[in-house]
Amino acid sequence: MSIKIGILGLGTVGCGVVQVLQQNAKDIQTRTHCDLQIKAILDRDLHRERDVNGDFLLTDQPDEVLHDPEIDIIVEVMGGIEPARTFILDALKHGKNVVTANKDLIAVHGHELLDAANEAGKDLYFEASVGGGIPIIAALKESLSANKITHLLGIINGTTNYILTAMAEQGREYAEVLAEAQQLGYAEANPSSDVDGLDAARKLAILASIAFNSRVALNDVFVEGISKITREDLTYAAELGCTIKLLAVAKHQDEGIEVRVHPAILPLTHPLASVNGVFNAIYVVGDAVGETMFYGRGAGSLPTGSAIVSDIMRIARNLKSNSMSSINCTCYLDLPLKSSSDFYTAFYIRLLVKDEPRVLATLALLFAEANISFASIIQKQRGKDQAEIVLVTHPCREGALQEALDSVKAYSKVLSIDNVIRFEKDYPES
Amino acid sequence: MSIKIGILGLGTVGCGVVQVLQQNAKDIQTRTHCDLQIKAILDRDLHRERDVNGDFLLTDQPDEVLHDPEIDIIVEVMGGIEPARTFILDALKHGKNVVTANKDLIAVHGHELLDAANEAGKDLYFEASVGGGIPIIAALKESLSANKITHLLGIINGTTNYILTAMAEQGREYAEVLAEAQQLGYAEANPSSDVDGLDAARKLAILASIAFNSRVALNDVFVEGISKITREDLTYAAELGCTIKLLAVAKHQDEGIEVRVHPAILPLTHPLASVNGVFNAIYVVGDAVGETMFYGRGAGSLPTGSAIVSDIMRIARNLKSNSMSSINCTCYLDLPLKSSSDFYTAFYIRLLVKDEPRVLATLALLFAEANISFASIIQKQRGKDQAEIVLVTHPCREGALQEALDSVKAYSKVLSIDNVIRFEKDYPES
Repeated sequence: MSIKIGILGLGTVGCGVVQVLQQNAKDIQTRTHCDLQIKAILDRDLHRERDVNGDFLLTDQPDEVLHDPEIDIIVEVMGGIEPARTFILDALKHGKNVVTANKDLIAVHGHELLDAANEAGKDLYFEASVGGGIPIIAALKESLSANKITHLLGIINGTTNYILTAMAEQGREYAEVLAEAQQLGYAEANPSSDVDGLDAARKLAILASIAFNSRVALNDVFVEGISKITREDLTYAAELGCTIKLLAVAKHQDEGIEVRVHPAILPLTHPLASVNGVFNAIYVVGDAVGETMFYGRGAGSLPTGSAIVSDIMRIARNLKSNSMSSINCTCYLDLPLKSSSDFYTAFYIRLLVKDEPRVLATLALLFAEANISFASIIQKQRGKDQAEIVLVTHPCREGALQEALDSVKAYSKVLSIDNVIRFEKDYPES
Repeated sequence: MSIKIGILGLGTVGCGVVQVLQQNAKDIQTRTHCDLQIKAILDRDLHRERDVNGDFLLTDQPDEVLHDPEIDIIVEVMGGIEPARTFILDALKHGKNVVTANKDLIAVHGHELLDAANEAGKDLYFEASVGGGIPIIAALKESLSANKITHLLGIINGTTNYILTAMAEQGREYAEVLAEAQQLGYAEANPSSDVDGLDAARKLAILASIAFNSRVALNDVFVEGISKITREDLTYAAELGCTIKLLAVAKHQDEGIEVRVHPAILPLTHPLASVNGVFNAIYVVGDAVGETMFYGRGAGSLPTGSAIVSDIMRIARNLKSNSMSSINCTCYLDLPLKSSSDFYTAFYIRLLVKDEPRVLATLALLFAEANISFASIIQKQRGKDQAEIVLVTHPCREGALQEALDSVKAYSKVLSIDNVIRFEKDYPES
């Protein structure tokens, strides 16, 4: 069976798709019993230098790809919302199956696109939209589908993990490591989408929607970035037997679901703690399977190409057996979202105080008034009459913590509250 | 659509399957759009106490399950080769789809069973046969199918990983930890299948066959158990920044494939090094995806039930869409197997020698004659005139190492060669 592919976009990821299809052509053919051929590629710029070539049409006319009646599968790797959204809807209407790597689009318009695919009776796969080559979406939709997923914790942004790993391992400051990451091409000139947590939030919205069968929109995700993390925090974390990661957290509890992206202190014994550098990993707890983790490269042309081409091969098998995946939109529930004041975590609080008797006792009382007690305390002399105190609380409601912090701020012996970082204890919770 | 299930065996795993099907019944129905019902369960012993019950027939007559025309899916969780093999073949002939958790059977008769499924036009899934709830078989067959897999390293036996973890963390001896594991039920009264590496070898034969698309029989796997590992070896490993794991290793190189199960020294920086206790993990390197790892509980009634019920749900979707998985036997190549003398790894060698001048120099010369050089050396005084030496070689042919060891044994200053352990460096190899 001959299957023809059209690709929208020939940037880094598009070139990765072409390369994987070409370098493993023979195995791909044997494994699918199909002859997969790239027929046409759309790109705005027909003349820029690229490492790939082959027997395909390179065009800047969308219709030459989207409306070619011979093309069975459209691969969208342009990125961005528009025109990608319109092109995918158009492709589905014209009877094409679609593979996309577009997290921005799926996070915001996934529902619309999956419904359109369903209506057209076509497949829409998007494994590459989260975690590069890590097959987390197939795991959630299929291999773990016998489970109620209760927790999903991910390191799903390579840039921030590279920065935090370098800060932890080399004792360097955020700004310095960020600048280096920009030079090495691991961070963009405008790094906001990565370091402010938005990229991770998009991916978490996708993962949580699938894991909990309930739509989580990008705006539902509480987001906090890593720019407030200092060398001192990483040193204290190490003293506590922990490290700091930008975590994407989704939990399903009786009261509802909570979805949040923020830096978190994580015990070194947690499987995610040793996920370093540009690697990604998603830790998933299900009621039957227990703890699992999926680890790999979260970006890059070939890892992303691996996910996209594997999706293409699924569609090829479906076409050959004249079926479709039939797992399009899986959001059959409408679970309530917890507000951030109801999040329930432990906290790390770093304060500068006057080094006088009874200060610690007073602090303990202020927290106790909000029903918050401490799991550990570190105190260090800073200068002649100041002390730095790190408090690690037992898990508490975030609203209660905010109340306590208001009282602490008003306490005259407190010079500054220098950082407040959520602390994720080992899972599953007792 | 109503789908009826028959289960062969109601031991630990069988009860796990029933429990998962019951506790998540509503979600399973919504996710598959099918009503899955257990109709009959076969077990030799109709009267033993069990935690499960439900509206199904419990029978000791195989035909009441295998030949019930209403049953669509047979779940084989009896274990062992016979009568499981005959029952599965019989079920396929009678038009049933089959899910099995039986590693012994798949490792030895997988080819025959997959061919029978293919001929019958039925699905045969066996995700639970390796790694409990970890979806490694789906990953290799589908999600990573765009790749040429080059390396697969697994910790796929929970008993030996529990023992080695306890030895490493608590500085205890093998025999003592084994006895404790037996008391706790983590090791069997006759622990040979686990500690001698046979259980891991069966699982590796299954994984390597799928990863490399070439049949690897159980007898093709080189196997060495963990009973030779001592507290001293773990202490030296720690000094070298490493730990010791029972590794299942499969590599695909130009000359052929090598498949081996043995204790291995592994740098702490390797993702598998922090897989502790009864957890399993499989580290897979593909030419496009790069390094990946899949982690979770490798055994237990609910994790295994998770994999089995997810396989049942795949079949339900296939039945509903009137298709089949069409990825049965994937061994379309016939790759040559490397003999153990051609394995290429580094080695850790622990020797007791006379503490005299020139002994180390002579040892170095003896290894150099076989073209083997050292990456690290540790020497410690042992008693008045003896020294313990640990040599870590650079990677070499295993045949060359054996030659060198013969010369070393014949050298009069060498009192004993106390251990020789393979040393797996970080992957992918440079």
